[in-house]
Amino acid sequence: MKRENISDAVVRRLPRYYRQLSELCAHGAERISSHALGREMGITASQIRQDFSCFGEFGQQGYGYRVKELCEEIGRILGLDKNRRLVLVGVGHLGHALLQNFPFAKCGFSVGAAFDVSPAVVGSRVNGVTVRDMREIDAYLKESPADVAVLTVPQSAAQGVADRLISLGVRGLWNFTNAELSSPEPEVIFEDIHFSDSLLTLSYRLGNA
Amino acid sequence: MKRENISDAVVRRLPRYYRQLSELCAHGAERISSHALGREMGITASQIRQDFSCFGEFGQQGYGYRVKELCEEIGRILGLDKNRRLVLVGVGHLGHALLQNFPFAKCGFSVGAAFDVSPAVVGSRVNGVTVRDMREIDAYLKESPADVAVLTVPQSAAQGVADRLISLGVRGLWNFTNAELSSPEPEVIFEDIHFSDSLLTLSYRLGNA
Repeated sequence: MKRENISDAVVRRLPRYYRQLSELCAHGAERISSHALGREMGITASQIRQDFSCFGEFGQQGYGYRVKELCEEIGRILGLDKNRRLVLVGVGHLGHALLQNFPFAKCGFSVGAAFDVSPAVVGSRVNGVTVRDMREIDAYLKESPADVAVLTVPQSAAQGVADRLISLGVRGLWNFTNAELSSPEPEVIFEDIHFSDSLLTLSYRLGNA
Repeated sequence: MKRENISDAVVRRLPRYYRQLSELCAHGAERISSHALGREMGITASQIRQDFSCFGEFGQQGYGYRVKELCEEIGRILGLDKNRRLVLVGVGHLGHALLQNFPFAKCGFSVGAAFDVSPAVVGSRVNGVTVRDMREIDAYLKESPADVAVLTVPQSAAQGVADRLISLGVRGLWNFTNAELSSPEPEVIFEDIHFSDSLLTLSYRLGNA
């Protein structure tokens, strides 16, 4: 089922719900009311009910939500069951840190390969993933298409690499480069991690606590 | 001036405004209407006017905003002029990447020092910052207090290190550990970077584009 007209704010809250419910599940909680869930997350109960109503009927008046079922359902809405394929491009410190520590599988992604231009890292293995020469990426993606590429290349190379990946069929770019990327292909999705937005938010709060 | 009752959503948009206006400024734009700014950012003009009205009077009916002045004013609101001091704790791949590439100075922070427990990195310098032994952190922070600590330690060490930093006067924790941290001190501010929330948002969008 494709969903349309669901606001960005609601979409952004879904992973937070998923995280919170996974945590509750791990602690053995069986059910929770929208009020209690809201308290934990700093969201009103009515906001939660409204958010969930975008996706169907969950929970029951006076009973609350079954934690495990709701968690699984939100996981499915997020596409965790899709087992999408992903490649990582740019194995500098940040790329290396992601390969080493980020739980891609828990997010529903399997990492096919990593690519870099530097002979110093090409041929090495990080956490079971082989680092290949960037010159092999065309052949690789034709053989083993990927839905998503993690972009951890230098900012100056970002748009060029993105264009190349998109021409090879990649439809999602997880962009750590701090470059504002674009594509004429309307179906391509860019998800940017802006570290500086986060630090500036912290800076604001320190001055207004 | 301390500001209260400004919603989280408004605060989170401030760095985005700052980024957009800096970009416009760099491209030589002198003024911009709320409509044009909104179009660039995917926000309505009335939302922009409402957001800015939380902080005072900017812009002029029928004239728009002076880009440079507005950018500087938002920079001040964000605390860019405070030149806050920061330390980084945990010089693994991610910590190293941040020291090497993140523009702390542009965000109004100066990096005093970095700390790690590993003899392999203690004593090295990364981008002009000396990596010190974690055992020296108490003495260091008593001598040179820091407002913020970047937390790039392993998840299992996160809460312990956070508690120690807070006891040494750190009031802002920029948390990359994916641990949910807390403190009994009400004035301590945690700003979490949740990589997985971002990847799950991308996953959702791929399934609903």
